Amino acid sequence: MSTIVGLQTHDVRFPTSQSLDGSDAMNPDPDYSAAYVRVVTDAGDGLDGHGFVFTIGRGNDVQVKAIEALADHVVGLEVEPLLADMGEPWRLLTQDSQLRWLGPEKGVMHMAAGAVLTALWDLKAKRAGMPLWQLLATMSPQELVAAVDFRYLRDVLTEDDALELLRAAEPGRAERMATLLRTGYPAYTTTPGWLGYDDAKLERLSKEAVSEGFTQIKLKVGSDLQEDRRRMGIARAAVGPDIRIAIDANQRWEVQEAIDWVGELAEFDLAWVEEPTSPDDVLGHAAIAKGIAPTPVATGEHMMNRVLAKQYLQAGAVQVLQIDATRVAGVNENLAMLLLAAKFGVRVCPHAGGVGLCEAVQHLSMFDYVALSGTTQDRCIEYVDHLHEHFATPVVIEDGHYVAPTAPGAGTEMLPESIAAYEVRNDS
Amino acid sequence: MSTIVGLQTHDVRFPTSQSLDGSDAMNPDPDYSAAYVRVVTDAGDGLDGHGFVFTIGRGNDVQVKAIEALADHVVGLEVEPLLADMGEPWRLLTQDSQLRWLGPEKGVMHMAAGAVLTALWDLKAKRAGMPLWQLLATMSPQELVAAVDFRYLRDVLTEDDALELLRAAEPGRAERMATLLRTGYPAYTTTPGWLGYDDAKLERLSKEAVSEGFTQIKLKVGSDLQEDRRRMGIARAAVGPDIRIAIDANQRWEVQEAIDWVGELAEFDLAWVEEPTSPDDVLGHAAIAKGIAPTPVATGEHMMNRVLAKQYLQAGAVQVLQIDATRVAGVNENLAMLLLAAKFGVRVCPHAGGVGLCEAVQHLSMFDYVALSGTTQDRCIEYVDHLHEHFATPVVIEDGHYVAPTAPGAGTEMLPESIAAYEVRNDS
Repeated sequence: MSTIVGLQTHDVRFPTSQSLDGSDAMNPDPDYSAAYVRVVTDAGDGLDGHGFVFTIGRGNDVQVKAIEALADHVVGLEVEPLLADMGEPWRLLTQDSQLRWLGPEKGVMHMAAGAVLTALWDLKAKRAGMPLWQLLATMSPQELVAAVDFRYLRDVLTEDDALELLRAAEPGRAERMATLLRTGYPAYTTTPGWLGYDDAKLERLSKEAVSEGFTQIKLKVGSDLQEDRRRMGIARAAVGPDIRIAIDANQRWEVQEAIDWVGELAEFDLAWVEEPTSPDDVLGHAAIAKGIAPTPVATGEHMMNRVLAKQYLQAGAVQVLQIDATRVAGVNENLAMLLLAAKFGVRVCPHAGGVGLCEAVQHLSMFDYVALSGTTQDRCIEYVDHLHEHFATPVVIEDGHYVAPTAPGAGTEMLPESIAAYEVRNDS
Repeated sequence: MSTIVGLQTHDVRFPTSQSLDGSDAMNPDPDYSAAYVRVVTDAGDGLDGHGFVFTIGRGNDVQVKAIEALADHVVGLEVEPLLADMGEPWRLLTQDSQLRWLGPEKGVMHMAAGAVLTALWDLKAKRAGMPLWQLLATMSPQELVAAVDFRYLRDVLTEDDALELLRAAEPGRAERMATLLRTGYPAYTTTPGWLGYDDAKLERLSKEAVSEGFTQIKLKVGSDLQEDRRRMGIARAAVGPDIRIAIDANQRWEVQEAIDWVGELAEFDLAWVEEPTSPDDVLGHAAIAKGIAPTPVATGEHMMNRVLAKQYLQAGAVQVLQIDATRVAGVNENLAMLLLAAKFGVRVCPHAGGVGLCEAVQHLSMFDYVALSGTTQDRCIEYVDHLHEHFATPVVIEDGHYVAPTAPGAGTEMLPESIAAYEVRNDS
């Protein structure tokens, strides 16, 4: 038996605003950051659990503080029983009634729980000697269901429904695992499309994306319609008619404005329209989805919890669910969202980029392919070529696909030298 | 001209869990707390702005930290232009793209903005020599509309719609102000109904409520159906048939469970059913509202922002909107929610209790009566007899009504000796 003896945090910030990487209509100058946590045990096996919340700069110290507020909930606990039933740490970290008041189940406090939960999943995977996707894909349906909180979901998804979905995917797991290891998981790239890039850079990066094997790119839009039309024209000319182009408005529009704006861009053949309006507006997205059909609506990177995801699916407000590794309460809640998507037959194309989001979220899509939806049809994981060098097991992209990681863990471990180089010390 | 020279914070916690005051099915042992902020100027007039976020204990330090993260946004600014257009501090405090990522517009970071905004409203009211309700009720429709963020609301409420609602209420303002000062605003009391109280205390407090002039009480339910039936029986017998009894489940139920459970209590003639399920579940509440009609659904104390309020109203998911003084981004966002309610013709009965919520929220209902909805019909503000003694201008209840405050300010100023006595010092 071993014990959790520490929960170490770091406020890590990369000065990305200097290069306008990551610039969009809502976020003109992000400094990609991580509120980082390491769960330390006394096992003496050299294995820690690593997790983080991705933020874009200011406020990363608040996020770190929220993670620290959870230390008392895990430090001192025995590791083995905690990792044997991953529903238990979920309850400990999200169901403290006093901390829950600060959400409930949303925002800073909820994401903090997610960082610690993901660190525990990382530890569990490392102890199992497996990458997280493989650990999840070899857990029994019962173990997986035990890790999911079905509260507030049961009107559309019960424990029995989830078991049925997982059991239905058991045939073929081994073959799909072999396929995944051979071919990887489809990716698309946002690298060409940041708003802050000039035309030449947009054109060059669009062409590079195609030559690197990507079959979909994404452009940021929403600041100026004529500019968007011009940039879409450049991108479409650069990639040709066979490459999909998605657009991302980063919440810039009102409901009718979204419908009108997208109508003006429809001639460019849009793969999807992402975050057209407030991420909280289920009914607004439902109206937009109706108004721009058959162009699909995509959203999820700010979808705060499984209850919101449930409603998006119920209302037909999302056609492409973009789960995010650190927006919700970790692997547990993303399992809930994958199950909901599977129940509704909606495809999942995760949000990634930022700091370590690609490293983390790929495991969830790969699990989904092997052990839940059973397909990669029309699915792809976002890829942005930023900051991967800071991670112990950086993603590998080959021919427009994420290569399935084989290193043990959840992909969330940052290099100690990167932490040391980019850690901000707050003495406030 | 004067300048904001400081933003002082305090982590204030009252050990209410020792008495089970405030105990309900979701929150068994709250320690009512305030993440408190004082906006200090160099005006030399002795007037500061006071605001806070109500929490229930653990995590209050995280909430304080979030308020501190906003210091750079206001310290150093000139006071007079800032207070002349209250839309400006809203934009400064809620639209920082990096901090917004931590929500957006929800949870710890959003409530922090609310505390600072409310402190600025407190300062504005004190400088005007008026209680906040009166300040708001004498502002022009244009000034009020300028304080509201209509982003993501315009599909149901535009600036012009809001102006029209406010102008329509201009006739009769003076008469209603006189009526308010004479008779106060109706209150209801939750004091009898906490889950932790025994039967004798429930019965005694229920009878006391009636003798004190309240015409509505509220009971916490949701832990055990037979217990709820028994306690409802005691309360109904104690108050007689003419007093309204509302019930509050504090988010305990699934959708169908709520419909079934409420059905078993309907014989007791329910004034409303409060927080039957997740506060994020608009579609769930809509289904519950349909399933328990004509019993009204009430919710709002965890309604994170105006976008969620909009959807509740669009979906017919709430019949009693319970705005909360500190859950959203302050007075500004509560003005948005009052305007939305007025647009949909839905009554507002604020959530209160906790620490200082009665003191703060009364101003919003009184403004609404004088200058927006123009009525108190079927409306009442929650009242709980806790912790008022710690405030500079504690609420006064007479004959089941909130007496309209006449002291300048927003009611949010806590006594310095109370802060000193209950402040927690965190050296983490």
